Amino acid sequence: MTLGERQGDEKNDSKYCGVETEFNDDMPQLLSVNIHGGFDFVVAPLMDPAYRPSLLLSSNGGSGVLPFAGSDLVLSPSQWSRHVVGKISSWLDLDSEDEMLRRDSEITLKQEIAWASHLSLQACLLPAPKGVTCANYARCVNQILQNLSNMQLWLRIPLEKSDDDDDDDGNRSPNSMGEEHRDSWEMWNSFRTLGEHHSQLSVAFDVLSSLPSVNSLARWFGEPVRAAIINSNSFLTNARGYPCLSKRHQNLVTEIFNNSIQIVISGQQMQNLPTGTSGTNSHNSNNQSEGVEGMQRHPLRSYLDYIAYLYQKMDPLPEQERFELGYRDYLQSPLQPLMDNLEAQTYETFEKDTTKYIQYQRAVAKALLDRVPDENASTITTVLMVVGAGRGPLVRASLQAAEETGRKLRVYAVEKNPNAIVTLHSLLKIEGWEKIVTIVSSDMRCWDAPEKADILVSELLGSFGDNELSPECLDGAQRFLKEDGISIPSSYTSFFQPVTASKLYNDIKSHKDLVHFETAYVVKLHRVARLTSPQPVFTFNHPEDSTKKSNDRYKKLRFEIPTDTGSALVHGFAGYFDSVLYKDVHLGIEPSTATPNMFSWFPIFFPLRTPICVQPGIPLEVHIWRCCGTSKVWYEWGVTSPSSSPIHNCNGRSYWVGL
Amino acid sequence: MTLGERQGDEKNDSKYCGVETEFNDDMPQLLSVNIHGGFDFVVAPLMDPAYRPSLLLSSNGGSGVLPFAGSDLVLSPSQWSRHVVGKISSWLDLDSEDEMLRRDSEITLKQEIAWASHLSLQACLLPAPKGVTCANYARCVNQILQNLSNMQLWLRIPLEKSDDDDDDDGNRSPNSMGEEHRDSWEMWNSFRTLGEHHSQLSVAFDVLSSLPSVNSLARWFGEPVRAAIINSNSFLTNARGYPCLSKRHQNLVTEIFNNSIQIVISGQQMQNLPTGTSGTNSHNSNNQSEGVEGMQRHPLRSYLDYIAYLYQKMDPLPEQERFELGYRDYLQSPLQPLMDNLEAQTYETFEKDTTKYIQYQRAVAKALLDRVPDENASTITTVLMVVGAGRGPLVRASLQAAEETGRKLRVYAVEKNPNAIVTLHSLLKIEGWEKIVTIVSSDMRCWDAPEKADILVSELLGSFGDNELSPECLDGAQRFLKEDGISIPSSYTSFFQPVTASKLYNDIKSHKDLVHFETAYVVKLHRVARLTSPQPVFTFNHPEDSTKKSNDRYKKLRFEIPTDTGSALVHGFAGYFDSVLYKDVHLGIEPSTATPNMFSWFPIFFPLRTPICVQPGIPLEVHIWRCCGTSKVWYEWGVTSPSSSPIHNCNGRSYWVGL
Repeated sequence: MTLGERQGDEKNDSKYCGVETEFNDDMPQLLSVNIHGGFDFVVAPLMDPAYRPSLLLSSNGGSGVLPFAGSDLVLSPSQWSRHVVGKISSWLDLDSEDEMLRRDSEITLKQEIAWASHLSLQACLLPAPKGVTCANYARCVNQILQNLSNMQLWLRIPLEKSDDDDDDDGNRSPNSMGEEHRDSWEMWNSFRTLGEHHSQLSVAFDVLSSLPSVNSLARWFGEPVRAAIINSNSFLTNARGYPCLSKRHQNLVTEIFNNSIQIVISGQQMQNLPTGTSGTNSHNSNNQSEGVEGMQRHPLRSYLDYIAYLYQKMDPLPEQERFELGYRDYLQSPLQPLMDNLEAQTYETFEKDTTKYIQYQRAVAKALLDRVPDENASTITTVLMVVGAGRGPLVRASLQAAEETGRKLRVYAVEKNPNAIVTLHSLLKIEGWEKIVTIVSSDMRCWDAPEKADILVSELLGSFGDNELSPECLDGAQRFLKEDGISIPSSYTSFFQPVTASKLYNDIKSHKDLVHFETAYVVKLHRVARLTSPQPVFTFNHPEDSTKKSNDRYKKLRFEIPTDTGSALVHGFAGYFDSVLYKDVHLGIEPSTATPNMFSWFPIFFPLRTPICVQPGIPLEVHIWRCCGTSKVWYEWGVTSPSSSPIHNCNGRSYWVGL
Repeated sequence: MTLGERQGDEKNDSKYCGVETEFNDDMPQLLSVNIHGGFDFVVAPLMDPAYRPSLLLSSNGGSGVLPFAGSDLVLSPSQWSRHVVGKISSWLDLDSEDEMLRRDSEITLKQEIAWASHLSLQACLLPAPKGVTCANYARCVNQILQNLSNMQLWLRIPLEKSDDDDDDDGNRSPNSMGEEHRDSWEMWNSFRTLGEHHSQLSVAFDVLSSLPSVNSLARWFGEPVRAAIINSNSFLTNARGYPCLSKRHQNLVTEIFNNSIQIVISGQQMQNLPTGTSGTNSHNSNNQSEGVEGMQRHPLRSYLDYIAYLYQKMDPLPEQERFELGYRDYLQSPLQPLMDNLEAQTYETFEKDTTKYIQYQRAVAKALLDRVPDENASTITTVLMVVGAGRGPLVRASLQAAEETGRKLRVYAVEKNPNAIVTLHSLLKIEGWEKIVTIVSSDMRCWDAPEKADILVSELLGSFGDNELSPECLDGAQRFLKEDGISIPSSYTSFFQPVTASKLYNDIKSHKDLVHFETAYVVKLHRVARLTSPQPVFTFNHPEDSTKKSNDRYKKLRFEIPTDTGSALVHGFAGYFDSVLYKDVHLGIEPSTATPNMFSWFPIFFPLRTPICVQPGIPLEVHIWRCCGTSKVWYEWGVTSPSSSPIHNCNGRSYWVGL
């Protein structure tokens, strides 16, 4: 039974809800009670909690049989793997000062994981590290992970962080984390760094009754969180005696759902439900368990019902989000539009972005009105050149703007892709544009124009603005723009934003080479924590007054992550752009000003070869260069604070855009 | 002309002394004056300092000819490469806020390096970074280094660090380095980290009149320092009016010589030499320049003479150091003595270490005296077994101890290498030991001994003590040691010490794989900065009371680098051992207690995949594991403070010792 169904939710793991159980050596009984109670899976101990390898007289009387919860035959293979997450013994303390406890823990951990692996479980829940260090625990888990087939290990981490509002920002040694300054994220970060960010190691966080700040919670959503364990004592009781969650907890649960994280309910029934309500349900009617004869209502059922209620009351995914589901966190190499010719399929997709062309039409209309006063509307013909006309969407938008404003146009459609020229010619005939539009099959950088243009219209922008070489193309076209001519777009600016993005980092790492770490990717960012506001990087203006000016750029940025975030890991930088088409008409994907309902551009992602941990109060300093060679343009980037990284992509050795 | 000759100095670059000059477009004249003045090379500007690319009317009148100091033909190729270090224009400021200056600097840097490269110079001196950041400078140099054939680039760095004795240790944000807290090492560290520790980038430090603390200076000797520039104004004047250096400067110069760093004298003549002394020399008689007719004495000659005097008065290298010169900083893989049989050459070398066998003889003698009272000396025969007898040095030492103490011995020489057995048999005949010594061709771990031993003597120790599996071998031999028997050695302890070792790091990096970064190397450490005292790691005792005890070990170490050192880069850990042979007779290489005149062991070096920068007041926390599998033993290691590293050598994947 799932929490519910939403459109586009087919792949959302968070519709499956689990329950944490006590040790029970009657696994079939345990599973039956919980599945019939409405849960999709159990997080159940595999080993008798009294077992210690160093005790000669263990519960099995020294027979050599380990005291596991039943043999592998008590459940079918698919029951084991679909419905059971192995809960590793919670007494384990691999960093104990007590050497015997430490050794017992190491042995038991290996035995339990080996058993879980034998059962083909999908995941095991590892107990939270105890104490302040976790190096030996991390070392053992790391050894285990090297030989583990497919199983996921979920490291349990309580979601807690002490406030240090009373601390001065720079006035604290960032490593003096003692009992008084506790941030469980630091433990997680140390653990996974020691284990080289293994992709089978993830987090199951414990949601406690009090929550850290919003910023502090947000950084977790760039981490590989697979499960959220909510104890019944984190629930409140509503007026009718049913469990519910605080507003902040509800928001957190919504984020959990949005990030495909599975919820596990844990603990005892806390609320004394009003008598006589066993057959009714406070929030929804999803109560099929009541139909099973003779089964007792599951003691945690009302918690499950409440979580299902929250799941079902979420807003449905907007159509665009549903359309883009398959692209979430999927890394794509940016286009090489100068070197390669676009395919029909690509044109097709881009042309569907009506919002974009409406903005262009508005910009052209405003430019026409500025250029030609009403009294000259019938006498003056404006020369408008679409450079990079593709299959004609900007020609259409320009002609519509002319019609809308009553201005006369002469249009040149310049396009270097001979395949698109074929489409343009047929379009001219179909639309009857032959008298107004001249098609030019040429690269704008070398076209010998018969006259100069009043308005130059182009759509050469990439996700990072200049990354598809709009500056170089438009510099080449500027020769045939009148001195007082207008370029649409008239300027564009790129933006940079540090992010936690462990999924992207692991995807890049899986290539095991340098090249992939020195490449920028177009990607629909989803499981990413945006750690600060974006900052502007490079701006290009068109037309450019000083024609001698180089398109090389260098920018140094300084980000301050809000101190209440706590420490955070920066895997790289999200890149965006915003463009001024003409005056107040803009177009862009920078989150705070993004043009709504536009899908032509996903953000870009610049990775770091080694993620950098930024501690509260320490600025993150980043340097970005745009470098121009004779045959290519490339970016280099690097960090100098809190510590220096190598400069990425030196001389464009890994990633470049051909001229 | 060199500063002098010392035995073993053939490869010491520091006997060549240079001089920094002004720009002079008559290179032959400039070179002649300075070579005849006694210097071995000049550090001379290659480009007119007035040149700026952005100035249309540069000194060459726009002819396109860059204003270099003469054409390549004015000197012979060997003069250029042997006697000239190119001094890059000191006005360059690649991180200036002034964009024109920045661009001029970038262009000029590339032009000058290209010219120096054309001339096949061995090195160029890059001006010190100006201001507080150097990211753009580092990026440009990094780009240049990718395409540079053999030339070294020496980055000029003033040797300066402000004291912060008044600072509380943990009470300072480590990255808030402003003007008030200046440590030029931080600039160097940022520069070379941005450039990925390129092996052609090194340091030329400026020795100023005031010096930072001893600890702060020491860390530089693990860095790739190639030159030390001493300005004449850092000299004092002695009673006779000649230049000399303060005691601390003299000590620094000695360290400079010991590390093969070349001295460059710079600046103006400061001292007014007493009249009538041009033909005499205050310190030594190395005054051949006076013999050249009509040549004026070089204005910096007396500084050179003083440096030569310091060079010549150094103590000669001890014989052992001379013998080991070729091994300095040369990485060797540790032996696999269990899996491989040693070669005759190796036995030959080890047997020459008389100091070691004298210590063994002393230990055996003490054990014999303790074991057999004087009154029983003629009646009791002590059973002594040499396990791992090799070609017999311990047999000889034991027999000598018996003779010295007048005790009677029965000796078993157990050896697994059949080749060494041959030697042992012939030795028995030659020495007439047939009645006393029984040769056993067997691995001690499976030998079925005919009687039990009073004393077990072995030399199975590696540079890190237990790393050649002495614990496993002696555990195997313990079966045939009497309950109250003695093992020589009776215990051994390994030691760990964080070091700066950029040469070793670059040698490991050059393999471009993970395996070499997860291997421990035997190496004669020389150009290494030892950042703290060593700390003990693992101790093994023999015989071991609890035979059930595992030889697995785990140790967490916490190093505090003296705060006056400043920040330092840790490339890895030097490892040593100390061993108690018997009671107060010890043997070891831990620097503070090392047995003198012993050459059997060089230290061991455990690298870090990514060097870790440790800032003052922040502890360095290291974890080391000794792990035992069924067929191998290995170490894993990792750092958790100031930040976490990956755990190295997980499951012994890169480096292990076979059982």
